[in-house]
Amino acid sequence: MTSPAQQPSPQLFFQTINAYQRSEALKAAIELEVFTAIGEGNSTAADIAKRCNASERGIRILCDFLCIMGFLTKDGDRYSLTPDSAMFLDSRSPAYLGGAIEFIASSDLTDAFKNFADAVRKGGTTRPDGGTVAPENPIWVKFARGMAPMMALPAQLVAKLVDPSADKKLKILDVAAGHGLYGLAFAKNNPQASVVALDWPRVLDVARENAANAGVTDRYSTIEGSAFEADFGTGYDVILLTNFLHHFDPPTNETLLRKVHAALADGGRAVTLEFVPNEDRISPPDAAAFSVMMLGSTTSGDAYTFPELDRMFANAGFSHSELHQLPPTIEQVVISQK
Amino acid sequence: MTSPAQQPSPQLFFQTINAYQRSEALKAAIELEVFTAIGEGNSTAADIAKRCNASERGIRILCDFLCIMGFLTKDGDRYSLTPDSAMFLDSRSPAYLGGAIEFIASSDLTDAFKNFADAVRKGGTTRPDGGTVAPENPIWVKFARGMAPMMALPAQLVAKLVDPSADKKLKILDVAAGHGLYGLAFAKNNPQASVVALDWPRVLDVARENAANAGVTDRYSTIEGSAFEADFGTGYDVILLTNFLHHFDPPTNETLLRKVHAALADGGRAVTLEFVPNEDRISPPDAAAFSVMMLGSTTSGDAYTFPELDRMFANAGFSHSELHQLPPTIEQVVISQK
Repeated sequence: MTSPAQQPSPQLFFQTINAYQRSEALKAAIELEVFTAIGEGNSTAADIAKRCNASERGIRILCDFLCIMGFLTKDGDRYSLTPDSAMFLDSRSPAYLGGAIEFIASSDLTDAFKNFADAVRKGGTTRPDGGTVAPENPIWVKFARGMAPMMALPAQLVAKLVDPSADKKLKILDVAAGHGLYGLAFAKNNPQASVVALDWPRVLDVARENAANAGVTDRYSTIEGSAFEADFGTGYDVILLTNFLHHFDPPTNETLLRKVHAALADGGRAVTLEFVPNEDRISPPDAAAFSVMMLGSTTSGDAYTFPELDRMFANAGFSHSELHQLPPTIEQVVISQK
Repeated sequence: MTSPAQQPSPQLFFQTINAYQRSEALKAAIELEVFTAIGEGNSTAADIAKRCNASERGIRILCDFLCIMGFLTKDGDRYSLTPDSAMFLDSRSPAYLGGAIEFIASSDLTDAFKNFADAVRKGGTTRPDGGTVAPENPIWVKFARGMAPMMALPAQLVAKLVDPSADKKLKILDVAAGHGLYGLAFAKNNPQASVVALDWPRVLDVARENAANAGVTDRYSTIEGSAFEADFGTGYDVILLTNFLHHFDPPTNETLLRKVHAALADGGRAVTLEFVPNEDRISPPDAAAFSVMMLGSTTSGDAYTFPELDRMFANAGFSHSELHQLPPTIEQVVISQK
């Protein structure tokens, strides 16, 4: 993506100003089921076009672009899926995450980036009611349905990191549970784990479905409402804060964390999953870039560095916090001790 | 942009589906004059924010993202321009091309990529009247004004390639001249060159302005109208087809090229500047990706390979065509002999 040394070039400008076409082309390929068609054995533009009810010319140009972007490979006039595309974009794969476009490419989110200069001027979203964090915003139902497949692996990894022996009774609160997969991974990992999931009522419908599918309904209960207003109860060993703190500013988070602290049993732990940039705020690139998502879609959210998160937890009364990588994901886990 | 070997990852999916935020952030930075502000010596988020009438928080997040994308560098809390950004994105630079967003990021173009699946189904633009090639589409005035700075270097390179000695009388027709820079580069390169520019009337206003600025008005004349309908006249030594053939299908191009052939003097040459992918149609990536721009914005345009262009010229009566690289640009030049 960079220019040859010493040779001024408008190439990066040109690529970046047209980058939106990459998003639109990927979305179109998912909508047309191009990846599934190729996974089923269709490999030429003519065969894929027939399977997808599209023009051969359109499919040829789209598939060439998918090769350029790294989603397909091409040998002569035959297209093949990359291993990642076969796993995540063929709708017959259990790890299919094409449904994520219902959330991640929905106009609820993408509209927040129109006239982005206004968000930069203001320092926060220009969308009404604080953007995505507006109470009972239906986007979180789309999130819960669409993003679950993307969360299956990180959820397992978090459960194994936090509860490696999985041999003790564990009472878990899953704050803003969404699809519920993080809490459910603990319940599946440890037969003595019980989970209380908190979220808006319509979002919890999705979490309860997933609990039923996981066969852990007897160890799964719910609290409906806002994390800032609902009564958490007490005596939790683990309170999960997965992809939640980035929506709010530090004082708001500290208010919540004091409530989390009070709800934990002695020796309990808050477990935070976040995009955590280094202190330079520009690396690693994907985690650091998440702050732009928050500038566009929330009033005052951010991708926080570990020292910032550590300070919020300390101010809320936690004794110490530790940062853990979670490869191969781009997120990290902060474990904070009561 | 690729996953570590053997480790399945949804990272490329996530990056690509969010790629539109890169376009929007770059557009916002240009609109807010962030690059100019930094070029003037403002280096902290606070100072840049003050200069750009924006919030410090918004500027900090935007500038970090510009670092991640490769447009800025960061040392501590101080941002600097890269050499490319200083040359092309600081509005005080003579090579400033921020004005290109008025064309390249205009809704005339970007709307063509909404519901892109429909364009793939149809095999062409879903925009009315054939998209960007509709007669007298005002987008070409935006093009002529906005894209000129990006074309200054390639125009010089084409003139020097085609007329290296610059010591003979040369009569040039510049088809779909737009800003006029290609023809004007010949006029500036060779004091015996005269140029006839053809385009829609309002577009020619821009070309005539540029001719006046170049001081070559006495060797510059114009023909108003469509390249397919206007009378070209005859006896041209060079006919320029710069970024034109990609808008149309091969039969349409051959019709035009027969007209070009007839208008050339004996020994005359057609000079075509194009995005020319290799025969695999997926390399080089930027030239090959241009076909997506044509799928979205035209009825039947494409980025043609050299064998395809060669065949069109041969079918129109040209004796032979040669392909020339034009580094550092990503386009190539086809010189076709009458």
